[in-house]
Amino acid sequence: MAWLRKPIRGILMDITGVLYESGERKAIEGSIDALRMLRTADIPFRFITNETQKTKEQLDSVLHRLGFDIYEREMFMCVPAAKKFIHDLNYRPFLLVHPNVEAEFAECNQNEPNCVVVGDAASNFSYENMNRAFHVLVDNDDSVLITLGKGKYYKEDGKMTMDVGPFTAALEASALQRPYATDRHAIVIGKPGEEFFRLALEDMKLRPEDVVMIGDDLVCDVGGAQSAGMRGVLVRTGKFRPEDENHPTIKPDAIVKNLLEAIERVLSTERPAKEVRPE
Amino acid sequence: MAWLRKPIRGILMDITGVLYESGERKAIEGSIDALRMLRTADIPFRFITNETQKTKEQLDSVLHRLGFDIYEREMFMCVPAAKKFIHDLNYRPFLLVHPNVEAEFAECNQNEPNCVVVGDAASNFSYENMNRAFHVLVDNDDSVLITLGKGKYYKEDGKMTMDVGPFTAALEASALQRPYATDRHAIVIGKPGEEFFRLALEDMKLRPEDVVMIGDDLVCDVGGAQSAGMRGVLVRTGKFRPEDENHPTIKPDAIVKNLLEAIERVLSTERPAKEVRPE
Repeated sequence: MAWLRKPIRGILMDITGVLYESGERKAIEGSIDALRMLRTADIPFRFITNETQKTKEQLDSVLHRLGFDIYEREMFMCVPAAKKFIHDLNYRPFLLVHPNVEAEFAECNQNEPNCVVVGDAASNFSYENMNRAFHVLVDNDDSVLITLGKGKYYKEDGKMTMDVGPFTAALEASALQRPYATDRHAIVIGKPGEEFFRLALEDMKLRPEDVVMIGDDLVCDVGGAQSAGMRGVLVRTGKFRPEDENHPTIKPDAIVKNLLEAIERVLSTERPAKEVRPE
Repeated sequence: MAWLRKPIRGILMDITGVLYESGERKAIEGSIDALRMLRTADIPFRFITNETQKTKEQLDSVLHRLGFDIYEREMFMCVPAAKKFIHDLNYRPFLLVHPNVEAEFAECNQNEPNCVVVGDAASNFSYENMNRAFHVLVDNDDSVLITLGKGKYYKEDGKMTMDVGPFTAALEASALQRPYATDRHAIVIGKPGEEFFRLALEDMKLRPEDVVMIGDDLVCDVGGAQSAGMRGVLVRTGKFRPEDENHPTIKPDAIVKNLLEAIERVLSTERPAKEVRPE
């Protein structure tokens, strides 16, 4: 197993589709055990998620109800990162986000918006709201478009559902023409953006080449992690589909049944390494 | 005026933003006169529009109320063209179109859809409907996406409003991943698609190099016409914006105040040419 030949000193994990299936009220088989094993092993780990329909508190509470023992400080989420970005650069956001997370931006000045923040807004993706976002972009040449991740879809209640990515593509397409000189591409705060991964890496004080990212999204989790210099492992849970194994450009370092298998493999090589046993 | 050096033997015109402003209840200055002049001149003309919020009958009735003397047979519209395409290829459409034009597809079998037809659906662009369209595309590798034009926005009641193009872009982006081997691009039935222009050219029995297209959409009208081999003239009415004069790649053959100026120029050169006067 080539991906384990170089030591792994830290682990990043996606949450939805890796720990539990979105919409379903139970943990994915083995993931509670996987986490329990990690807690007793001597290896740092963090959770990194593009979930933008829940606050950190809400997600934390869901995870605890499902039987996961997780701390808020271990979770890296898009909304707090976007809030900091907006605050640091003094942007005034128009929010095209899920009602659950609107209050997170309460401190931001939202008058005369000069930026659009798009999250997984679900039914907030109405024609009226899309048009309001469009106007923030076309009425002011300096306004920016910030997208919380670039996911195309996710699985909820067993059904594929459109994610933020396509709606970001719509806004990019609508605003591209003005001004002609500049293509207006969204600033991505979330996976697969390298900056977002870096927040978690810095928190673990680790270099990307020492870390593996485990996720169910081939493009955002695996492709994003690999682009950032990490190893990327794909689980066959969540939004995984058989054709993910034959993507023309993104090749996971490993494809495993689920989180438990990934963690077992990492830990089984991690510990022998310390005892300096031959492989 | 280089664009008039070669004779013009036929004229194509956009309707919305050229004859009248969308949402406003009056004709654009000079356009009624322009049309009256055309009726007495010896030059064929047709109207070609991406309007997909009205049936031919409804649009015709609006135009008559505004004082235009137009026949349905002179109008080329996306919906009838799409209906024919769907019928010829035996597609079963899921309709993401404006309620006004839904009935136009009543004869089509809409059970177990294997194609999505996207028009300017306005408030029908709900998250729920977008998801239904997404499922038609991802659940069946052979299903196709048909878009009625690719307009980015239009002007209604003096305000820029998102058009079908961005929502098509969203569906393209959402479905692109499946199957990986094929990018799913929309089939365009409308401007700037060359096939759509060809319907009107064939009806006039003219070659593209003998025809001028007059419109307010730089990309769909002017760029589309030029790509199809016609001359393209931009009017400073409708959705026209000053930056349209400095597009990096699309250069109109002429930019005029309004339809009247375009028609006057065409007719003023057309008639002298018959008298074989020196230019």
